[in-house]
Amino acid sequence: MTINLDHISANPLLPEVKEAMIEAIRMDYGNPSSQHKAGDRAMAVLEKARESMANLINCKNTKEIVFTSGGTESVNHAVKGAAWAKSKKGRHIVTSNIEHNALIRSLRRLKTMDYRITSVSVDDNGLVNPAEVAEAITEDTILVSIMHSNNEIGTIQPIEEIGKIVKERKILFHTDAVDSVGLVPMDVQKLGVDILSFAANTFYGPSGVGGLYIRRGTPLWPLLDGGVQENNKRAGAENLIGIIGAGVAADHAKKDMAPRLSHIRTLREKLLAELPNAIDEYYINGHSDICLPNLVSLSIKYIEGESIVLMLDDEDISVSTRSACATGSLRASHVLLSIGRSHEDAQGTLVITFGPDNSEEEIERFLKALKNVVETLRRMSPLYAKKN
Amino acid sequence: MTINLDHISANPLLPEVKEAMIEAIRMDYGNPSSQHKAGDRAMAVLEKARESMANLINCKNTKEIVFTSGGTESVNHAVKGAAWAKSKKGRHIVTSNIEHNALIRSLRRLKTMDYRITSVSVDDNGLVNPAEVAEAITEDTILVSIMHSNNEIGTIQPIEEIGKIVKERKILFHTDAVDSVGLVPMDVQKLGVDILSFAANTFYGPSGVGGLYIRRGTPLWPLLDGGVQENNKRAGAENLIGIIGAGVAADHAKKDMAPRLSHIRTLREKLLAELPNAIDEYYINGHSDICLPNLVSLSIKYIEGESIVLMLDDEDISVSTRSACATGSLRASHVLLSIGRSHEDAQGTLVITFGPDNSEEEIERFLKALKNVVETLRRMSPLYAKKN
Repeated sequence: MTINLDHISANPLLPEVKEAMIEAIRMDYGNPSSQHKAGDRAMAVLEKARESMANLINCKNTKEIVFTSGGTESVNHAVKGAAWAKSKKGRHIVTSNIEHNALIRSLRRLKTMDYRITSVSVDDNGLVNPAEVAEAITEDTILVSIMHSNNEIGTIQPIEEIGKIVKERKILFHTDAVDSVGLVPMDVQKLGVDILSFAANTFYGPSGVGGLYIRRGTPLWPLLDGGVQENNKRAGAENLIGIIGAGVAADHAKKDMAPRLSHIRTLREKLLAELPNAIDEYYINGHSDICLPNLVSLSIKYIEGESIVLMLDDEDISVSTRSACATGSLRASHVLLSIGRSHEDAQGTLVITFGPDNSEEEIERFLKALKNVVETLRRMSPLYAKKN
Repeated sequence: MTINLDHISANPLLPEVKEAMIEAIRMDYGNPSSQHKAGDRAMAVLEKARESMANLINCKNTKEIVFTSGGTESVNHAVKGAAWAKSKKGRHIVTSNIEHNALIRSLRRLKTMDYRITSVSVDDNGLVNPAEVAEAITEDTILVSIMHSNNEIGTIQPIEEIGKIVKERKILFHTDAVDSVGLVPMDVQKLGVDILSFAANTFYGPSGVGGLYIRRGTPLWPLLDGGVQENNKRAGAENLIGIIGAGVAADHAKKDMAPRLSHIRTLREKLLAELPNAIDEYYINGHSDICLPNLVSLSIKYIEGESIVLMLDDEDISVSTRSACATGSLRASHVLLSIGRSHEDAQGTLVITFGPDNSEEEIERFLKALKNVVETLRRMSPLYAKKN
């Protein structure tokens, strides 16, 4: 049996989500926009999923929830939609140095359309300083976009504090909460954001489904123009089977959040406590407390993360070097460089992510395997030979 | 049992598609971009679906197929992506008067970004004249986008002929083939298009899955920026369950196309032959031969299409007044006005769409119900009273 310590690449579907999606396939609901009874039934299940989603993030008006094809579409929609809607007011956007590729590349795209971007730096723990965000804001700033939690190092940003600064200046505020929603408590009333991105797979729903919270009255252009679906905010026939799965996943995420958090925190503490017995000369990246409870980012000196992943894979243990979205890129992680890691240490990084389905025994098996892999790789490492 | 004569709003899933999707849910493949074995397995099924899709439209290089969240995303990606990529060469786009809302509204969006649009008119049958496309092209035309078939009247455009004209001028050519791919034979080699949009539900795959054919070397900006998925053309974790369903649907569409076409043509001919026995004073819209074999657009004088739909729904018969994407719009169809229908006649229009699952008996039951509904509605119609 494979040990999945790469939940951030793909969380397994909850049994209840599987069941609901299989039932949806069997029911074959049809198109929620149809004018007849079949359409009404489809619309009813769509709106039920929307309620579940709203409930998960304490959104009071279900019309503020827009389903999309996933976190990437949500983030693209949020920042491009805000930039285009506000282009007459200004063309400056503030973000951080450690955002996800979906955001970085969306902003890079906007740069070619004559928008200006300011990226604030983070400290060694990966934390954004709200004062720096305040300083970065100019007369023509139209959008501030700071991620809720980082997908490589787990650090959670002071969104509420940043939100207050941004709102005083009457600027749109988006947070990419793709790796947080459904995992940690989330309350859009408290956060003070105008737009929030999420993805269903983070809370054991299907991949290819995500969404946006868009506060009522927020000016945002659609990314997908066409029909009047999703309260005229996102055109296109819905992935209803996936959305139904997302709704059920949201219900369970809300209901089971406390026991899930308690379990994954135990696993994380066990891993961190026992790691020194398995390996030496490593860093734990990210903030030690203000962080995702399911993630450990581990830079192991003198060896390559890719080699560790492959060797652990041979032992049927899945981990990753970083976000699956960045696979194929040979460059060192911009996140790790931003928190002060050297290129070399960044290359030796593993992202270990847990879920409720992991057990303490699995952590022990992982540590044992990691010990062997690190010893083997260091024996072959010229860097390791040089230092000794 | 409901009689579904609204296949264009929602085609039912093929039993084999349901089975494949249920199996995919049970397998829970994970993320094709993951670096470990689970990722490799997911990538293998993703690429198998891509091959099936390529095969359906005679695309020789599977890298030219990009999966999206449906027809609407495909069309948005095609025209916005082409416009942005080519903005330095020019800002003029040629299209037709009768395109789908996804295209019309994407172009309207581009207009606000300083692009110019020329829409060529169509004749009474809904046909675009290739010579008019040639005339509309200017020095700064960067894209021609003409739909393959129309979703309201079924007319199929002379894409091959238009393609030759467009290619001579070295301009990008996109066709929205969302209502054609999988229903009628499609060969991207012959068509001469650079970009083609499709949706899986047209050929009995799931809603919320579609794609693009993008000829190798075509400059096109992604609509979704982020990770390197889909050969770096469309970022975001894949809706793998839906894509697997689309692949199986594509296999069957290819294999079963001839018998399906034969069956739906029989139904269409039966309906058209027996219609005069049921009602009088109506028009059949669209070209009588160069058209989708599964669609009849029927304008019934003196009454409202919406009322017919609701009364037929009471008899468990599903039809629509037009594309489900246009539901909620109270304006008369731009397609029907473009082919010369009056506002009044446009309002009295039904779009009847068949599938392999319909029977001749269902057509008879529909005709009988339609006769009663039309009689009832005309008895209450002031327009009908006035003319008599």
